Amino acid sequence: MIVSLTTDFGADSGYVGQMKGVVLTRAPGAALVDLSHGIAAFDVLAAALLLEDAVGAFPDGTVHLAVVDPGVGTARRPLALEWKGQRFVGPDNGLFEPFLEGAAVHVIQRRELFRHPVSEVFHGRDLFAPAAAFLAKGGLPAELGPPIHDPVRLSWPEIDWEPALLRAPILRADAFGNLQTRLRREFVPVDGEAVATLLADDGARTPLGPLKRCYGEAGPGEPLALWGSNGRLEVAVREGSAARRLGFPAKRLAVEVTWS
Amino acid sequence: MIVSLTTDFGADSGYVGQMKGVVLTRAPGAALVDLSHGIAAFDVLAAALLLEDAVGAFPDGTVHLAVVDPGVGTARRPLALEWKGQRFVGPDNGLFEPFLEGAAVHVIQRRELFRHPVSEVFHGRDLFAPAAAFLAKGGLPAELGPPIHDPVRLSWPEIDWEPALLRAPILRADAFGNLQTRLRREFVPVDGEAVATLLADDGARTPLGPLKRCYGEAGPGEPLALWGSNGRLEVAVREGSAARRLGFPAKRLAVEVTWS
Amino acid sequence: MIVSLTTDFGADSGYVGQMKGVVLTRAPGAALVDLSHGIAAFDVLAAALLLEDAVGAFPDGTVHLAVVDPGVGTARRPLALEWKGQRFVGPDNGLFEPFLEGAAVHVIQRRELFRHPVSEVFHGRDLFAPAAAFLAKGGLPAELGPPIHDPVRLSWPEIDWEPALLRAPILRADAFGNLQTRLRREFVPVDGEAVATLLADDGARTPLGPLKRCYGEAGPGEPLALWGSNGRLEVAVREGSAARRLGFPAKRLAVEVTWS
Repeated sequence: MIVSLTTDFGADSGYVGQMKGVVLTRAPGAALVDLSHGIAAFDVLAAALLLEDAVGAFPDGTVHLAVVDPGVGTARRPLALEWKGQRFVGPDNGLFEPFLEGAAVHVIQRRELFRHPVSEVFHGRDLFAPAAAFLAKGGLPAELGPPIHDPVRLSWPEIDWEPALLRAPILRADAFGNLQTRLRREFVPVDGEAVATLLADDGARTPLGPLKRCYGEAGPGEPLALWGSNGRLEVAVREGSAARRLGFPAKRLAVEVTWS
Repeated sequence: MIVSLTTDFGADSGYVGQMKGVVLTRAPGAALVDLSHGIAAFDVLAAALLLEDAVGAFPDGTVHLAVVDPGVGTARRPLALEWKGQRFVGPDNGLFEPFLEGAAVHVIQRRELFRHPVSEVFHGRDLFAPAAAFLAKGGLPAELGPPIHDPVRLSWPEIDWEPALLRAPILRADAFGNLQTRLRREFVPVDGEAVATLLADDGARTPLGPLKRCYGEAGPGEPLALWGSNGRLEVAVREGSAARRLGFPAKRLAVEVTWS
Repeated sequence: MIVSLTTDFGADSGYVGQMKGVVLTRAPGAALVDLSHGIAAFDVLAAALLLEDAVGAFPDGTVHLAVVDPGVGTARRPLALEWKGQRFVGPDNGLFEPFLEGAAVHVIQRRELFRHPVSEVFHGRDLFAPAAAFLAKGGLPAELGPPIHDPVRLSWPEIDWEPALLRAPILRADAFGNLQTRLRREFVPVDGEAVATLLADDGARTPLGPLKRCYGEAGPGEPLALWGSNGRLEVAVREGSAARRLGFPAKRLAVEVTWS
């Protein structure tokens, strides 16, 4: 069984290794896959988007253990959820926003499963890792605690829909500096003839030309818009960083797509 | 069987991957867990503290392969040791200080187990990884070479004990900038009513108030003292870096705890 | 079966995790080993040298999945090759230069094995990871597509051979700042009495003295030449970075070795 891990701990902190030790103690043979330990401290939104992109690459039954948890030790609830065959374990702070629609969400309450004494500053190791191991061994979220219907939601800026025009906010830069939106390919009726423009909050407009198919279709150093590996619109710079080139996140940015 | 890895090589150096290749060649099926490859170059003390925090999360029989080894290629001895069911492989330079009390310590001498030719600059791959694989397959430290009773010791600043007062030096900042001591929870008779003060080597005293239970009990940006995830006293800043805020390691710091 | 991974994606990007998810979906139980995800963007030469150093530490049948791929989405061919019992999957851009001599090289064409829809910007996940999983399960490169005989070659500066003198260009600094050449130990007839000199492109000559056996034979901070862990000549600084000390890569450097 696969357990993926996403944290803001830093891969070299030693804390990720401690979580893995607990998972492997409880679920020997689990295959551990790091998604990212470089989430900016407490950046729940970035972790949610990274998870949203990643889960499609994993088989049914994978357990995604995610700990970006500014509220550790407070009354925020620990959650286990199931969504389209994938399972998730982590704090109730919006981290699993992309998966809440249609999910079965449970509060983790089976204290006898925890690692004792439970450190109030490291639920990742003492509470979430044991819960993830429980699921990896075939346990169900419903066996960890009662269902809830009011998980904390995360809000992100909305896409504007107008006739023959979509305006999608840039939410995040990936590791290459590619600027990501949540605008899905199927929302744009015409593919090749759609044209993109970058909008900055200072009013500047940068034409990005027709949507491209791959980075190689733009000139070196030239910004372009294309469908990212997750099937959503991205702004990139060929062999460069669009974030650095276009001033994100210092400027708030959006992409406008029009077609005729 | 689990093999944990701790080095100052950098996870992206390629050298860690070479060590893993050798372990998996000799012990197929071993579960490899990275503790840290971001130890500062040759910082044996930092690695020893990180290991001390981590081993409790691993099951009996785990092999901890640790290579922070400024003396590679010189006469420093290669060691294999057993301590409370955990095993350790690495250089004799103090790296295993927290585990020497009560440990069975052996010099690794079974040259026929090594990877040949042995590089004089990469014992991690050619000597320690084979020894770790040997232990992971069920071999014993005693089968690797004779016992020794004079391993190199590491000294760290001591805790001062006075009536109703403890003074613990800050030894290390973790990845979050939390400042760590080795003062264990059970040394402080009263919990809630104990009060902490940060002392700097320039004579400055910063009150930290009563010991907290979790980060959320302090105001944002406010320094606090609490029991860390390892059960030892730490100084932290809520949603911030205590190291940066309080000037560590530029200043030498200590925490004083008093109770009545 | 072992699958090693080398990319310029960054370990924390989430993209490496997606590739691993696909490999483990297709080849459950594969042992995944990261060689490096910190290759500088599009630095095919650095990746080729890192792979060349690493493969000897892995057992026969290992699959090396390497994606440093500025041409993703263009007409560059995807390759699978076999060389001395090791297998390689990645783009046809010189990444596998050290292994082309005597290799069986095939173009990957079995589209039904790919992950669909294939993203034109992430062949690592949708094309190369499935091919690596296919090989990890015992498939052959020849089953992925037809052989080719004109893979893209990478050229690196040549070693100069003169009577009792070799001049080897510095190709790369490793994670410690050690400066690496491709001059192999067996090319220098005398070992202990060989003497090295560093040459810079501004004409400066820095004597490095007789070849050393390990870092400890030089004084702290002193540059030295020795046989690296890969059996090739390196320039190092004891407990320091030769790259920083000697100005690489800003200066182009070479090592001259003479003997009598």
